[in-house]
Amino acid sequence: MISVQTIAEKVGAQVIGDSQQIISRPNRIEFAQEGEISFIQHAKYLPLLSECKASAILTTSQFVDTKLPFTWLVVDNSYFAFAAVIDLFLPSQKPDFSHHTLFFIEKSAKIASQVQIGHGTYIGKETKIGEESVIYPQVYIGNHVQIGSNVMIYPGAKIMDNSIIGNDCIIHAGAVIGSDGFGFVVGSDGVHQKIPHKGNVILEDHVEIGANTCIDRAVLGSTIIKSGVKLDNLIQIGHNVQIGANTVIAAQTGVAGSCQIGENNQIGGQVGIAPHLLTAKDVKINGQSGLTKSVLTEGATMTGTPAQLYMEYNRSQVLRKKIEADFIQKKNKE
Amino acid sequence: MISVQTIAEKVGAQVIGDSQQIISRPNRIEFAQEGEISFIQHAKYLPLLSECKASAILTTSQFVDTKLPFTWLVVDNSYFAFAAVIDLFLPSQKPDFSHHTLFFIEKSAKIASQVQIGHGTYIGKETKIGEESVIYPQVYIGNHVQIGSNVMIYPGAKIMDNSIIGNDCIIHAGAVIGSDGFGFVVGSDGVHQKIPHKGNVILEDHVEIGANTCIDRAVLGSTIIKSGVKLDNLIQIGHNVQIGANTVIAAQTGVAGSCQIGENNQIGGQVGIAPHLLTAKDVKINGQSGLTKSVLTEGATMTGTPAQLYMEYNRSQVLRKKIEADFIQKKNKE
Amino acid sequence: MISVQTIAEKVGAQVIGDSQQIISRPNRIEFAQEGEISFIQHAKYLPLLSECKASAILTTSQFVDTKLPFTWLVVDNSYFAFAAVIDLFLPSQKPDFSHHTLFFIEKSAKIASQVQIGHGTYIGKETKIGEESVIYPQVYIGNHVQIGSNVMIYPGAKIMDNSIIGNDCIIHAGAVIGSDGFGFVVGSDGVHQKIPHKGNVILEDHVEIGANTCIDRAVLGSTIIKSGVKLDNLIQIGHNVQIGANTVIAAQTGVAGSCQIGENNQIGGQVGIAPHLLTAKDVKINGQSGLTKSVLTEGATMTGTPAQLYMEYNRSQVLRKKIEADFIQKKNKE
Repeated sequence: MISVQTIAEKVGAQVIGDSQQIISRPNRIEFAQEGEISFIQHAKYLPLLSECKASAILTTSQFVDTKLPFTWLVVDNSYFAFAAVIDLFLPSQKPDFSHHTLFFIEKSAKIASQVQIGHGTYIGKETKIGEESVIYPQVYIGNHVQIGSNVMIYPGAKIMDNSIIGNDCIIHAGAVIGSDGFGFVVGSDGVHQKIPHKGNVILEDHVEIGANTCIDRAVLGSTIIKSGVKLDNLIQIGHNVQIGANTVIAAQTGVAGSCQIGENNQIGGQVGIAPHLLTAKDVKINGQSGLTKSVLTEGATMTGTPAQLYMEYNRSQVLRKKIEADFIQKKNKE
Repeated sequence: MISVQTIAEKVGAQVIGDSQQIISRPNRIEFAQEGEISFIQHAKYLPLLSECKASAILTTSQFVDTKLPFTWLVVDNSYFAFAAVIDLFLPSQKPDFSHHTLFFIEKSAKIASQVQIGHGTYIGKETKIGEESVIYPQVYIGNHVQIGSNVMIYPGAKIMDNSIIGNDCIIHAGAVIGSDGFGFVVGSDGVHQKIPHKGNVILEDHVEIGANTCIDRAVLGSTIIKSGVKLDNLIQIGHNVQIGANTVIAAQTGVAGSCQIGENNQIGGQVGIAPHLLTAKDVKINGQSGLTKSVLTEGATMTGTPAQLYMEYNRSQVLRKKIEADFIQKKNKE
Repeated sequence: MISVQTIAEKVGAQVIGDSQQIISRPNRIEFAQEGEISFIQHAKYLPLLSECKASAILTTSQFVDTKLPFTWLVVDNSYFAFAAVIDLFLPSQKPDFSHHTLFFIEKSAKIASQVQIGHGTYIGKETKIGEESVIYPQVYIGNHVQIGSNVMIYPGAKIMDNSIIGNDCIIHAGAVIGSDGFGFVVGSDGVHQKIPHKGNVILEDHVEIGANTCIDRAVLGSTIIKSGVKLDNLIQIGHNVQIGANTVIAAQTGVAGSCQIGENNQIGGQVGIAPHLLTAKDVKINGQSGLTKSVLTEGATMTGTPAQLYMEYNRSQVLRKKIEADFIQKKNKE
């Protein structure tokens, strides 16, 4: 139970209404009850306000309507502020695995202080884990791995030999970091001989890797995921790829071997990117697109398979409809 | 070894031929040998009958041909009946993990009677597991999870904190239920700050979740998979999604955050569904389609990217071919 | 530290330059330093040579330029030879799990000599594992499984009951072999009843299965992955599928139930193949294609959704552009 006043101070909000009111919890606009706080970040949710039973609404100034019976908390970025409200009411707590014992740590591994290690986890030879990191149950961490401080590794993630993981990274359940790349040489007999993969994977700081996502290690050198990159679930990153800082990729996208993706790219779900391509910074690629050529223009938005500039794609769609209408009109005249 | 008579009673079939014949096992039409039973569910398999060595054929009345040397078992739904025949010859048995010991169950967990728990499994604090459920080896079940009765959880599945799983559910190997949703707020410095996900995932009764499929938990409230839903392998379900009762989704499809999928939908493989969309009941979406708008018409069939009504898609394809033919004809005249 | 002479003998290269030179390690062309060896396999990398600091370059005769200050090692297949060079400098070593103890092997399992088994692994009843195989930590192997000799199974892979795995196979982390197929009969009440899957999965020799890839078992009989097949990460193979010898499939592709894929097919990433289709031998399917009909022509290359012959696809694209140009020209005249 937290007062509107305290919430407003926490998120830097201006209060319109009763700042002494006591709030029990945050809730979604469609479910919120009396005594709860909700938020509005987009005009499309405004119609829900007439039926909403929440006591307080967090939003930006253009959505405030003082004729409605809410206490308003006015902020600059309502989604950002609501995230802070959730943290205030439901603070995240680190798990406590101090009573867990059924794990297996090789003698030469170096585990810093305040590290939590769960049941069933394996930690390999010469591997180092930094302070305050949390390794959930059933995690596999191979040999010669370096893991920074304050890293969370969820159940069943596998971190293969020689991987380097920076500080403040999050690896979700079932992710595989550093699997063998997919490379073969076809002999004269049609049989595929495996190319040895002796490189590794590097995740810089503040990287998040989704559940069951796979990142292959390099043949030589490193597959590199730069600082602040966020990868969703079930993504495939091929060998020798580099992903630029703060790029965000949605679920089920595949980036083939040796691509160099720029900084601050926003890549939708189920996108496919062919091998050896480059993208500039600030490129957007819409969901399900298939990129077959490098994108060297900063800030370009790409769509379709094969992917083209979004503007050109739209122009082409409009032209197609005109041609169809014209054809039908002529046939009707004949 | 079971007589045709006994099989026919089990599946409610009318026998044409020798009901005292002894059958050794069911087999696929292309491999079946003397003394075996097979089935025909579609006319395209009829040509295989001339070479088929099976002694008995289970099928519907329109496919019976008494000139062929088989004993016929005639039913209304041959696939349904053949499933029952398989169960008769090869009944499923629950595994016996009673001698397994290397698991770790927190003291506050409540495990009902007749529950099987395999080697390496972890069960968290305040978690409840209902009667007759089977938890295979190497499963992770977090804190405050509720699991109903007669649930099967296969090896390496991960059920994250606060998940609720109904009765008679099946969770296949490597599936992740309740992973963090993918939500970020971009700060003025271009850095992505994580939105806390304090909600959960609810699976109602008779839900089946495929191998390595991921279902993200809600920011607040629940991601809900309704009764009777069947999800294939490697599917991604985003945060706050709701999937209507008895909907079936094929492998590698992705449903983005906050979608509300209707009842009895049939969604093909590798389909992508953009965030915040609705579908009515009985909607079909063909494989590899990309849904970018809600589908509010019950029973509509959608196809393509961006997805359109199947009828319109076909009309458009026919029109395109006419325009091409017309163009070529004119050029040839010039 | 290995001499050029020794390397050349190992890979059957002709040396142009100082064969007594000592090489410290192999490296990628863009990173190689003095004393290192790199390779050129394609003309597009030739411009990098002017800045390259490597001492020795492995390549084919057409790329040799004796005006450049390198020692050249000339071979017929530079990629093949470079793989051998990597093996020479960085030989693969089998892990040693001889001190691991926290695994659980059923008494009736038969483990051959020289098998390594890691912490947390489970091996089921009547299961057999052949000589020299390596089972990493946290692997699940069910009952009645047969595994050949010299097989590598990486952490967290799950091999379900009755699977048969040949010699020299590699199963990567998190892969699921033999999960239930996705088959249901819809009853008159709209409820989906599960078809029992009593078949298995067979991997022949020299098969490689990528991380988090799923292969469903057959209803009856076997899902069969023939000798020499290589599957990348996050692939879905449906029940009753057969994949022909030496076929290679890139990441995130899905092959629906009962397909029969021919020998030596090359299938790109994110391809979808509808149920019950056949492909001839030597077929190529480009990335993101959706195959909706069988491909009976040997050596055909398919592209697009629905997939068509690559030649026809290209002709259709050219025709579309001509029609658009013609339309715009006419409108401009009007």
